[in-house]
Amino acid sequence: MYRVGYLGPKGTFTEMAVNGLFQDNIQSVSYKTIPACIDAVESGDTDLGVVPIENAIEGSVHLTLDYLIHQVPLPIVAEATVPITQHLLVHPSFRGEMKEIEKIYSHTQAIAQCHQFIHQNIPYADLEYTTSTGEAAQVVHSKGGNLAAIGNERAANEYGLTILNSDIHDYPNNHTRFVVLRKKEDPVPIHELKKQGVKTTIMVTLPRDYAGALHQVLSAFSWRKMNLSKIESRPMKTGLGNYFFIIDVDQEYDDVLFSGAKAELQALGCEVSVLGTYPKYMITTREIKS
Amino acid sequence: MYRVGYLGPKGTFTEMAVNGLFQDNIQSVSYKTIPACIDAVESGDTDLGVVPIENAIEGSVHLTLDYLIHQVPLPIVAEATVPITQHLLVHPSFRGEMKEIEKIYSHTQAIAQCHQFIHQNIPYADLEYTTSTGEAAQVVHSKGGNLAAIGNERAANEYGLTILNSDIHDYPNNHTRFVVLRKKEDPVPIHELKKQGVKTTIMVTLPRDYAGALHQVLSAFSWRKMNLSKIESRPMKTGLGNYFFIIDVDQEYDDVLFSGAKAELQALGCEVSVLGTYPKYMITTREIKS
Repeated sequence: MYRVGYLGPKGTFTEMAVNGLFQDNIQSVSYKTIPACIDAVESGDTDLGVVPIENAIEGSVHLTLDYLIHQVPLPIVAEATVPITQHLLVHPSFRGEMKEIEKIYSHTQAIAQCHQFIHQNIPYADLEYTTSTGEAAQVVHSKGGNLAAIGNERAANEYGLTILNSDIHDYPNNHTRFVVLRKKEDPVPIHELKKQGVKTTIMVTLPRDYAGALHQVLSAFSWRKMNLSKIESRPMKTGLGNYFFIIDVDQEYDDVLFSGAKAELQALGCEVSVLGTYPKYMITTREIKS
Repeated sequence: MYRVGYLGPKGTFTEMAVNGLFQDNIQSVSYKTIPACIDAVESGDTDLGVVPIENAIEGSVHLTLDYLIHQVPLPIVAEATVPITQHLLVHPSFRGEMKEIEKIYSHTQAIAQCHQFIHQNIPYADLEYTTSTGEAAQVVHSKGGNLAAIGNERAANEYGLTILNSDIHDYPNNHTRFVVLRKKEDPVPIHELKKQGVKTTIMVTLPRDYAGALHQVLSAFSWRKMNLSKIESRPMKTGLGNYFFIIDVDQEYDDVLFSGAKAELQALGCEVSVLGTYPKYMITTREIKS
């Protein structure tokens, strides 16, 4: 049985990703920070680690990439995309109406994502910030009364809360991407889920910064008709103004096109390193509920 | 006197940006979330708003951009870059050694940024998460004892704490960028600070996604030798797989090169909107201390 570390506590969106990917086939271990979760994989305390990498609520995207690049270079072996759905959760003994809620607990990002809903429906409620959506549910579970938490369905189940209003987030179609890390680049035992294609994440460092540099880098992919699903420039840790690029390519790394593109980039003086080539999965409400 | 809203509470890095930019010439107002801070500018409650936009500790980059793009399209009128320096703060009555510290309070991102330092120096301390570095300092101020907070110099001053160890963050040269928002695109009354050049942030939406699309977009800038200091693809809110691009150009928007580049992009079927054309400032320790 695999040990899987994740950014906790229970009831967060990261735990939803873990649950959707592995269901009951693993032993999950909650960590308090992204670096602690990555270190645990490196030291062998866990076999796999699951951390957010894009558009996260709990935890920062940049922290995950920076830690993987500068400190502990573990390969990415899978990606899971989870829809962000926020609900208004109350204690099961709550019998009142929504407008009677006096205080709302949640992570600052979750409250911000439901800004319009709160403004229109519960404008007089006090807002109280917690370090995660899971912690918010825990507080409402233990205090009860006219309090509410904002969090996902898993938080509701975990802490026995009632969903008073579902889907209260302001934007539909909002997603968070998580990556699965492992010490060796072996496939991960995902059951039941259908693979949604493959992807390779690379890091490209320019020999120096000049106008048109990124344009040159992208040429190597463009004329080979390789599709890039994400590109982001990130500052180097050596000071402002030095950038490297993180590029997601919709292609396996051992594809023949890739070796050509890599050779072209190296001929320009770029350094190319691979953060992982891995399958993509989509976690829908069906997987999370089961 | 200008009213300036910022992502609070006192003692956060956002407040450092406000202090460095405006010093004593303004009345500052603390807001609890990024949307609340932006709304305040829109409604006229404040004249200016200051929110994090890149590599932030408190608050999410994506939230700022998404809220400006989808909800309240205020122009960016200035940018401030603040170095991230974390210190270990204790109550002034603390007389012990670092290893005697029993508990460390801070925002999860700040604790993660000092992961190696804690691991090597205070490995047995409990970690307690707060919603901001400012709140952590406040807790240590009121509880005293063998507790410590991780935060910046401003948090130390604000809550009368002693800096036991300075610069305990794991990476040097880490910065956070903040933007100043205003209802009208007027210059901001910055005193004493030297402008570090100008910048234009634009959003480019592609008519459809295809391999090489971004490469085409960048061509418009590349052959004109216009330097891009940042590029990021962001998912549209209409679902996965649809992207737009946020591009920072080191050039004023009314430059003649810009109108040519814009016309070229529009001829490709792209939509181009301008989030702001504005001066850049660097906040150093000197400005923060004064």
